[in-house]
Parts: sequence; C-alpha cells; structure tokens
Amino acid sequence: MPCEKCEPLLKKSFPFWEKLSEKDKLDLMNGAGCAEFKKGQNIHNGTVCTGIIFVKTGCLRVYILSEEGKEITLYRIFAGDVCVLSASCVLESITFDVYVDAEEDSRCCILSPSSYRKVSELYPEMKIFLLEKTVSRFSEVMWIMQQILFMSFDRRLAVFLLSECEKSGSSEVKLTHEQIAKYMGSAREVVSRMLKYFSSEGYVELSRGGVTVTDFESLKRLAF
Amino acid sequence: MPCEKCEPLLKKSFPFWEKLSEKDKLDLMNGAGCAEFKKGQNIHNGTVCTGIIFVKTGCLRVYILSEEGKEITLYRIFAGDVCVLSASCVLESITFDVYVDAEEDSRCCILSPSSYRKVSELYPEMKIFLLEKTVSRFSEVMWIMQQILFMSFDRRLAVFLLSECEKSGSSEVKLTHEQIAKYMGSAREVVSRMLKYFSSEGYVELSRGGVTVTDFESLKRLAF
Repeated sequence: MPCEKCEPLLKKSFPFWEKLSEKDKLDLMNGAGCAEFKKGQNIHNGTVCTGIIFVKTGCLRVYILSEEGKEITLYRIFAGDVCVLSASCVLESITFDVYVDAEEDSRCCILSPSSYRKVSELYPEMKIFLLEKTVSRFSEVMWIMQQILFMSFDRRLAVFLLSECEKSGSSEVKLTHEQIAKYMGSAREVVSRMLKYFSSEGYVELSRGGVTVTDFESLKRLAF
Repeated sequence: MPCEKCEPLLKKSFPFWEKLSEKDKLDLMNGAGCAEFKKGQNIHNGTVCTGIIFVKTGCLRVYILSEEGKEITLYRIFAGDVCVLSASCVLESITFDVYVDAEEDSRCCILSPSSYRKVSELYPEMKIFLLEKTVSRFSEVMWIMQQILFMSFDRRLAVFLLSECEKSGSSEVKLTHEQIAKYMGSAREVVSRMLKYFSSEGYVELSRGGVTVTDFESLKRLAF
C-alpha cells in the first residue's frame, strides 16, 4: 500500500518530481513511511541507516555525541525541509555518525535507503538534490564549529546585549541589527545570523524594533 | 592556447572525461591554467573564487582562520586529488570561507569557475563528482572537529603523532611544537607541556628538529 500521506510531501520536496515516470513515483511512495515522534524522542541513532527524513510538521535536532555523552547541536530541521545525514548509507562519502531527535512533536515521512537508491540511479537530479542538501548542511556545521572553536562572536554579542540591558534597566535592546553591527565593529549579516541563532536557542526574541532578551541565564553562561 | 600540461591531469581526475564532447574538453582545457607554488605560499584566500585546484605534485593545506588569526587545519590535499572549496562560487550552498596554502612546493592546475560552470550545466556527472568530493571533505572536517571538541588533549596529541608517523612511514615527526600547535588548533605552550610529559613517560624523544616516537604501544593505548 502506498503511503498516500507522503505523496504531497515528496512532491513538494523534490523539485524534479514531475520528471519522474509514474512507476518511479510509485516506487518512491511505496518506499516512504509516515511516522510521528514525540518531543524529545530519538529518531536516528548513529550508525544505522534510517533513511531520508522529510519533516512535515515540527522540528528535528541533529547532533553529534562524544563517548563521554557530550552533545553538540549541528543544526535543526524545520517543517518542509529534509534530513539527509540519517541516510549516510546512500551517501558513500559520509563516514561520520549523527543523532537526530524530535525537538517538538513532529510528523515526518521517511524514505527508505533502497527506494532512494533505486530511483536515484535513474535520475541524476535526485543525486544532485541530496548532495546539495548535504553540502549546505556542511556550511551550517562549519558556522557552528567556527563559533565554538574561535569562541569570539557569540560571546561578544552576548556580552554586548547584557551590557545594553544593564544600561537601560530593561530586557529590551532598541537597536537595529545594523546599529548593533556598527557598535561592535562587525557586519550586519554576521549580527543577523547570530541573533537568528540566539533566537532559535530561545535566548532572545527578535522584533522589528530590536531584540528582547528572554533567557538571561543562558546568555550569561555564554558571556562569562 | 590550451594549457596542454593540464589535459592529462583533468583526464585522470574526471572519471567521465571520455563522455565529454571534443568541444567541451577543449573548453575545460582552455579554462585551466598551470601554476607553481612555493612551500608556504598562500594559494586561496577566503572570499575570492580562485577555481577548482587539481594537485599534480606536492601537497596543499586547507584551513579556517579566526578574526584573531587563529588557524585550524581542516585537511590536506595530496597529488592526484582536487580542492573544491577554493571554488565556493560554483557551489552555491557553500557559504563559509577557507584558506589554502602550499604545504610543500606544489604544481597545480586551476580550472576557472566559469569554465566549470559552463560545462557542468551539460553533464550532471560533473556536478555529482564535485558535490561528492565536497561531501567527503565534510566527513574529514567532522572527524577533525570531533577530535578537537570531544577528545582530551593527551589523546589528541597521541592520535596526531601516530597519524603523522603513518603518513610519513617513519617514527620521526619533523615539525616544531609551534607547527604541531598550529595543525592541532592549539597553543604552543600546551603542546610543549604535553610533549614534555610524553617524553618523561618514554613515549617520545624530543630533538631540535622534531619528535621521535619511541614507544608506539603506549601511544596507541592512549589514542584508542
């Protein structure tokens, strides 16, 4: 039985869907299963080959785990996007293991590695699509790593926001990204990107007029 | 004038070379330039789009650089292999900057971004080839990051010394403490202290020119 609920999601996710033959569409649909995950539930665990995960609703968190149990979040996958590193068996050049948890209650479609492999042999577009997704995750990971390894800008921005709040005696910093960049001697893009990250971590809320600190404790931990 | 010396290297590097039309082969050859670099010379610098670098002889080092000038080596590229991150303009999903230096005297062919772009539009194999190269670098980078983020320093240094010995096929690592620190993204003092400890344990002998491993067994026990 084809997983009918997955069809619209696959169709929407693959820009080349209409190029596929009816048989190949059916093969993909037959190879895709719907799945629901509770907040906090583990979805993918290191070395197994779970498949390609299409997120319908909710949010997934992709992370690496040390032997000692230390976690580092690499990135999050939101509704409408796709997780490829959970199918490292179809990407031969991927030799590292990640873990994927549901960060919120999430509904997903999981495409089996064998179905992907079969159809992607016929359509180079499909290979290119997944490789490009992977390469763009590479960029996200490099960004996080640079923050962690060079330990500069996230810390500096946290220090800046805390000192602004202290000055004004409020949790709101009424400055545009442009202005913050100017004060910090940085570029607007860099500030916007880091604020977006702070916001995704729940440290701040972004609004038109500025930035509101919502989690002073975490921001202080980052700063000092 | 086609860069005739580049033809054999392109031919050897691209597994799909024979599929290309004569015109497209010529376009690629015309877009490829031979270049020689001295040991230590910078070849690619962050945001510019140098092109795809094919290494004929020698060795290149790919690294990231913090605002404060701290370097972290991501990987090395040896003869016969290809550097893609120096052409991030042709890989739209790459949004981070790397630096590339010649680690030894090196001869390379550099394929211009425009030639690559033109020909790769006609051959999906070419896109897949470069994307797969990039994804396999992603794996190498993840490995390095895990070393840095998760391992204790004695273990990391043991792994580093063993892998250097394996590469050179000798028990001698001809690098200064300063150079080792640079490769490991650490500080010279930290490296020197740990090497002194390794030496006092009889794992290594220190000399002016480098480090000689004298007890592989103990070092391996530490590393694995």
